[in-house]
Amino acid sequence: MSEPTPRVSDTLAEVRTRNPLVHSITNLVAMDLGANVLLAVGASPVMAHAREEIDEIVSVVSALVVNIGTLDAGWVDSMEQAAAKAGEVGTPWVLDPVGVGATSYRNEVAARLTALQPAVIRGNGSEIVALAGAAKVGGTRGVDSAIESAEALDAARDLAQASQAVVAVTGSVDYVTDGTRVIAVANGVPEMAQVTAMGCALSGLVGACIGIGADTLRSTAHALAVYGVAGELAAQHAHGPGSLRMRMLDALTQLDSETLNEMASIDQ
Amino acid sequence: MSEPTPRVSDTLAEVRTRNPLVHSITNLVAMDLGANVLLAVGASPVMAHAREEIDEIVSVVSALVVNIGTLDAGWVDSMEQAAAKAGEVGTPWVLDPVGVGATSYRNEVAARLTALQPAVIRGNGSEIVALAGAAKVGGTRGVDSAIESAEALDAARDLAQASQAVVAVTGSVDYVTDGTRVIAVANGVPEMAQVTAMGCALSGLVGACIGIGADTLRSTAHALAVYGVAGELAAQHAHGPGSLRMRMLDALTQLDSETLNEMASIDQ
Amino acid sequence: MSEPTPRVSDTLAEVRTRNPLVHSITNLVAMDLGANVLLAVGASPVMAHAREEIDEIVSVVSALVVNIGTLDAGWVDSMEQAAAKAGEVGTPWVLDPVGVGATSYRNEVAARLTALQPAVIRGNGSEIVALAGAAKVGGTRGVDSAIESAEALDAARDLAQASQAVVAVTGSVDYVTDGTRVIAVANGVPEMAQVTAMGCALSGLVGACIGIGADTLRSTAHALAVYGVAGELAAQHAHGPGSLRMRMLDALTQLDSETLNEMASIDQ
Repeated sequence: MSEPTPRVSDTLAEVRTRNPLVHSITNLVAMDLGANVLLAVGASPVMAHAREEIDEIVSVVSALVVNIGTLDAGWVDSMEQAAAKAGEVGTPWVLDPVGVGATSYRNEVAARLTALQPAVIRGNGSEIVALAGAAKVGGTRGVDSAIESAEALDAARDLAQASQAVVAVTGSVDYVTDGTRVIAVANGVPEMAQVTAMGCALSGLVGACIGIGADTLRSTAHALAVYGVAGELAAQHAHGPGSLRMRMLDALTQLDSETLNEMASIDQ
Repeated sequence: MSEPTPRVSDTLAEVRTRNPLVHSITNLVAMDLGANVLLAVGASPVMAHAREEIDEIVSVVSALVVNIGTLDAGWVDSMEQAAAKAGEVGTPWVLDPVGVGATSYRNEVAARLTALQPAVIRGNGSEIVALAGAAKVGGTRGVDSAIESAEALDAARDLAQASQAVVAVTGSVDYVTDGTRVIAVANGVPEMAQVTAMGCALSGLVGACIGIGADTLRSTAHALAVYGVAGELAAQHAHGPGSLRMRMLDALTQLDSETLNEMASIDQ
Repeated sequence: MSEPTPRVSDTLAEVRTRNPLVHSITNLVAMDLGANVLLAVGASPVMAHAREEIDEIVSVVSALVVNIGTLDAGWVDSMEQAAAKAGEVGTPWVLDPVGVGATSYRNEVAARLTALQPAVIRGNGSEIVALAGAAKVGGTRGVDSAIESAEALDAARDLAQASQAVVAVTGSVDYVTDGTRVIAVANGVPEMAQVTAMGCALSGLVGACIGIGADTLRSTAHALAVYGVAGELAAQHAHGPGSLRMRMLDALTQLDSETLNEMASIDQ
């Protein structure tokens, strides 16, 4: 392609200008932060899970985000219906397989959803490893350092190839891959893991960015960079997880193009 | 009436003194902020949706607030039962028809709830227009400026006459009407729309104010003014939606009568 | 026992070092703050209520916390299943009987859960009095001052003897009792009651502390002291309930052993 590569600031500017509607069927813990992150970047959140209205909503939004954090049978029905409809009408969707690997129920549900062809799957190292089937993961914890590096990237690549989704595995360095190409994003601070739903809300932001972008791989990497840079800026004046969370939302709104491009660490 | 008109500060003072219990059956995104706004003004939130206990709760509270933001069949049953019981025992209730106009399911549910005689219906311009049937609204977005002014007020007046409820339509200027009288409230800042559940939480505050006030129209207008003034005060030192939300809660608690009366812009 | 008594700072240090997994089946209002409090002290929250996966989760966590704040029939099934499994596999669990005394449904559910042998029951004065059956409580409000002192302690002692649980009744002074021994904890500030879910999130912290501690009575008292001290520190620079909540989370992370031991007011 002869077009100049869009910069990360272009992706954020597009979100702010076009205000994509993002439909989330997400977990009960993440709803508040998830909606606030979308609003902070200029997107419009729609949270709805009633089977009676899902098809109408999925048909008009820019993207759908499905998160299994507090799943139950009724909500899983809604998630599957929404994902199937998204496929039918061409709405790109993001799967956040929270806690996959922790219980057999989560494994089954995550596998069924993965088969419905998400555009992006975003998880931490242990989740991506579990979903890739590359390893047995015993607990519900976050990644350990062994998983974070080589093993997580290998699993992400395998999962991307098997699912035909872009896979984003987040950790101290994030990797985004379509199974062939790999983009590494090295933004963010470890303290972000002390705020609940930080990863879930990031999946929402990925939805906003792929909803307006042409290249899913790059749009996903840009979402990760925007989020990580906002976290770094927030951490500069935070005194713990309470103020970090507040300042993240402020930073996502205040972030200017120059700062973003300067701080973004995206390695293709 | 020969009584002196209560001022907005009188309404807030009454809430702080009498600590009304407000029962909310609200959406999953709005629960945290909704409860915190009620606590910040000195009211006591009760969040409960089990059909087994709704009747007992509705019978002892000062007001009920029903919000359809994340409706599903089970919750709608609870909402209808609660609204019917409220009518039976004389508990005033507020309907917040979130997203009406966006799906046919929402339209049906909102119409059924409206028929159960809420004391107040509060929504943004597109919601009030959709509920009034005055126009077909295609999306789930907020108001556009065309709707915000004349069209929204006309729709509010029509809806008030048809439903016998006081209707509050919020936007850059809010209008409160019983179908005949109209009160305009010009407080608040646009940045409030960047915080999720701000409107939903306002509906809770309306519940608290009508729960202790004799005149529903005026009490509703006062709730809008209190909220808008708190938003203006919060915005003075906010650096984005995270700090705006935090400072709103602080401002609702700290707000003194003199400042409130001075800043309130209520036009009858 | 010839071992030196662990200090409150030892309990917090253990939580931070061992990062206990705490499974919460809690109310919809409390999920965000509850998860954030656990993360702020270094514990790992798991929020899950699907009957399909509860047994697996309860079997691997350090503690379970059950909170009936926004109960309904489906969630109550999950709570009972989880509590029964916890008994079977030896996972200690905390019951937070939010609003017991307010409706007959809550009374029934709370009684059924109490019979499943929680390790700790934590509530405010009116809840503990209602659950103890020591008095009829008419409303859903917090404690009044009459209940807060002698009556609450008596009820807590009765309930502890009847249930064989440690009972923590929180108010301006908290009491923790196993029916014989009583520990009084005099930390915290009244403004904490203006933030929703503060009590619910404390029950989660109790779960984290009993999950790693040998002595349930003392671990519970330590949880109350840690929380109260964090509240006092937060209140020093707070300007209302919004900033108090934010600063609480910061304080729970920043709290050092010396400050904690100095400020903790634990009276055995």
